[in-house]
Amino acid sequence: MGTPDRPLSRRRLLGGGALAVGGGVVGAGLTAGAHAFAATDAQPATPAAPAVQVLGTQTVPFYGAHQAGVDTPAQAHAAFLSFDLRPGVDRAALGRMMRLLTDDAARLTQGRPALADTEPELAAMPARLTVTFGFGPKLFAAAGLDSHRPTSLAPLPAFPIDKLQPQWTGGDLLIQICADEPLTVTHTQRMLIKDTRAFGSIRWTQRGFRRSRGMEDDGVTQRNVMGQLDGTRNPKLGTPVFDGAVWVDSGPTWLHGGTTVVVRRIRAELETWDAADPTAKEFAVGRRLSDGAPLTGVDEHDQPDLAKTNELGFTVISESAHIARAHVTSDRQRIFRRPYNYDEAPGPDGNSDAGLIFAAYQRDIGTQFLPIQRNLAENDLLNDWITPIGSAVFAVPPGCREDGWVGQSLLG
Amino acid sequence: MGTPDRPLSRRRLLGGGALAVGGGVVGAGLTAGAHAFAATDAQPATPAAPAVQVLGTQTVPFYGAHQAGVDTPAQAHAAFLSFDLRPGVDRAALGRMMRLLTDDAARLTQGRPALADTEPELAAMPARLTVTFGFGPKLFAAAGLDSHRPTSLAPLPAFPIDKLQPQWTGGDLLIQICADEPLTVTHTQRMLIKDTRAFGSIRWTQRGFRRSRGMEDDGVTQRNVMGQLDGTRNPKLGTPVFDGAVWVDSGPTWLHGGTTVVVRRIRAELETWDAADPTAKEFAVGRRLSDGAPLTGVDEHDQPDLAKTNELGFTVISESAHIARAHVTSDRQRIFRRPYNYDEAPGPDGNSDAGLIFAAYQRDIGTQFLPIQRNLAENDLLNDWITPIGSAVFAVPPGCREDGWVGQSLLG
Repeated sequence: MGTPDRPLSRRRLLGGGALAVGGGVVGAGLTAGAHAFAATDAQPATPAAPAVQVLGTQTVPFYGAHQAGVDTPAQAHAAFLSFDLRPGVDRAALGRMMRLLTDDAARLTQGRPALADTEPELAAMPARLTVTFGFGPKLFAAAGLDSHRPTSLAPLPAFPIDKLQPQWTGGDLLIQICADEPLTVTHTQRMLIKDTRAFGSIRWTQRGFRRSRGMEDDGVTQRNVMGQLDGTRNPKLGTPVFDGAVWVDSGPTWLHGGTTVVVRRIRAELETWDAADPTAKEFAVGRRLSDGAPLTGVDEHDQPDLAKTNELGFTVISESAHIARAHVTSDRQRIFRRPYNYDEAPGPDGNSDAGLIFAAYQRDIGTQFLPIQRNLAENDLLNDWITPIGSAVFAVPPGCREDGWVGQSLLG
Repeated sequence: MGTPDRPLSRRRLLGGGALAVGGGVVGAGLTAGAHAFAATDAQPATPAAPAVQVLGTQTVPFYGAHQAGVDTPAQAHAAFLSFDLRPGVDRAALGRMMRLLTDDAARLTQGRPALADTEPELAAMPARLTVTFGFGPKLFAAAGLDSHRPTSLAPLPAFPIDKLQPQWTGGDLLIQICADEPLTVTHTQRMLIKDTRAFGSIRWTQRGFRRSRGMEDDGVTQRNVMGQLDGTRNPKLGTPVFDGAVWVDSGPTWLHGGTTVVVRRIRAELETWDAADPTAKEFAVGRRLSDGAPLTGVDEHDQPDLAKTNELGFTVISESAHIARAHVTSDRQRIFRRPYNYDEAPGPDGNSDAGLIFAAYQRDIGTQFLPIQRNLAENDLLNDWITPIGSAVFAVPPGCREDGWVGQSLLG
């Protein structure tokens, strides 16, 4: 097992790509914006060592201006846990809960056991573990602080394509756990659930995966269970576009430096998707399946030309294609997607139960997520093959300093 | 995405360890015993290139004297699928099924789409994919070949510790899918289920994980969800001890070069395990939790001294400790364990639903697995914290040549 407190080299190259991960910065205090990617890594650079370092000991700083797990290059495995608060849990109780959970997360993310850890050996492989907390709409009323709730933090309106199931919908507290190693997610989930028991009961849990570390060069877009390249147009981590789209800078001051997240469970209708021919699939998406290039371009990252017409005068990319419907003109309207695939046991008939845990982060749900989702729900060719079956929204408080706790700006 | 037919360097060092993986050997024909580990890799060695190669394009040869997926260094993710044959599926139908599934597996494991692949893009990342087939006890009668069934290939006798649930027990056909990338498992599972539909219905599926690639140096023993180092005493791949314990060399000739597998779903009783103190846990196992050393030694790989006594005259390792009960004296009696952890959604009470997909391979269930399991079931201190909830046995046919198919020696 890795030794949790072993000093790590500050940077390393992984898989031939350019992703550098911040080393173990235990006790480094506030490292604003320095979550785990090189562009804003506050640590001094040392030359990359040629020796290969094991990935299990890599850590992401816990303390900072923002909670980690949003602008952290997405880890390979995740669990999203949603809790209902128990009756009578008030502002004081919520404060106790968040102090406890913050302490657990601060330790576990740095490869140290939680205070009451029953399997301390399993804490020794942080594998870039992040723990991110979110507050659901009803938490504010429970705390007597409904006036501090962001206006648009409310259950999403019903969309015609939705078939929401209660077991995947809503919740008062979100704990998002991400790590490159699934056993780390398992252990962290278990420890945090234990410390949440007195305050809430589990409403839903969703477990998902992205591409494992090292499978492709870093920066290559991953595919989803439908075979599509997924994430081409995402704002890039560490850019002004990302910061302007994701971090709250207006509205209730307690949330400044935080964000909001929409977690939707979107089932892939693979039986009918598989029955569609490749041309129909590409027409629905507006991109080629093979390499993700827009139908008007040659390379994945070419800008789609939504005005370009074919010899018949029709636009090459249909106005109803997914990328046309999801298109926004202002960077401030963009959302940041950090989705995970899910794949549960198939039914006795052999049909898949797979899809996407769609997690989208934005300053404001009302002016960013909702207009896009309305556009998509109204008319997106892809809707024939995807069904939202779960939906929840949470405010993600800013990060905290070593002498503070997550949520303190609201509950403290 | 990786290009499936891109030539791969023959060997590479991963994570500072010594595991070398055979390159893409599409169409290489029979490479007996050359599955994926350096000791018996039939490919000529070329000097290791300093450039890091992506792991997603690595392949394990499909054709060979043995099916891959047994002596293949265990991949990070697995799905175990068990099917019930449909009424009327006879020897001829089973032959058609296995020709089809063999063709699918031969392609997908080498990074090429299956013939009727509906998401060919998802076939491009084999990530050391292996597909391993097994025949359950009732398949032999369905084929009119019950006289060819190995004598001890039958449902295991009921053990007092068992709480078997039908949904995790039995089955006529096993498909074991392993890869380092979970999306590869997802895609392969979907393709193979489609091609099995006409012949069988799904009885159970179990999805599990081991430590992800690169998290620790290769060769380091992984931990299970209880925090124990798991696999210390396993026969080493590519050794005479392994070959003598695993590959069938007597009994029905069609199975020579094959093996048998016992798949047990073993729930970890984590709520009570967590309540036990570390000394009690170590006494139950006979090893230290921190480093896996036997209680009579200092290093994980020290031989346990089962006779050593303490100052009171009691053996240091209890006669009821797990490692004492599981001990066998003859190498021919050993079993090879290739388990995967599972971790399903916790209940509303927050209690874990986690444990081990215990997969054990041996020449003969009757003389290897059964005596060990009887010893354990009778009196193993660890039994207080583990509950077998599923059980199935399968004969794993030998591998095949490029002009053959898996199961041909029985069904052809």
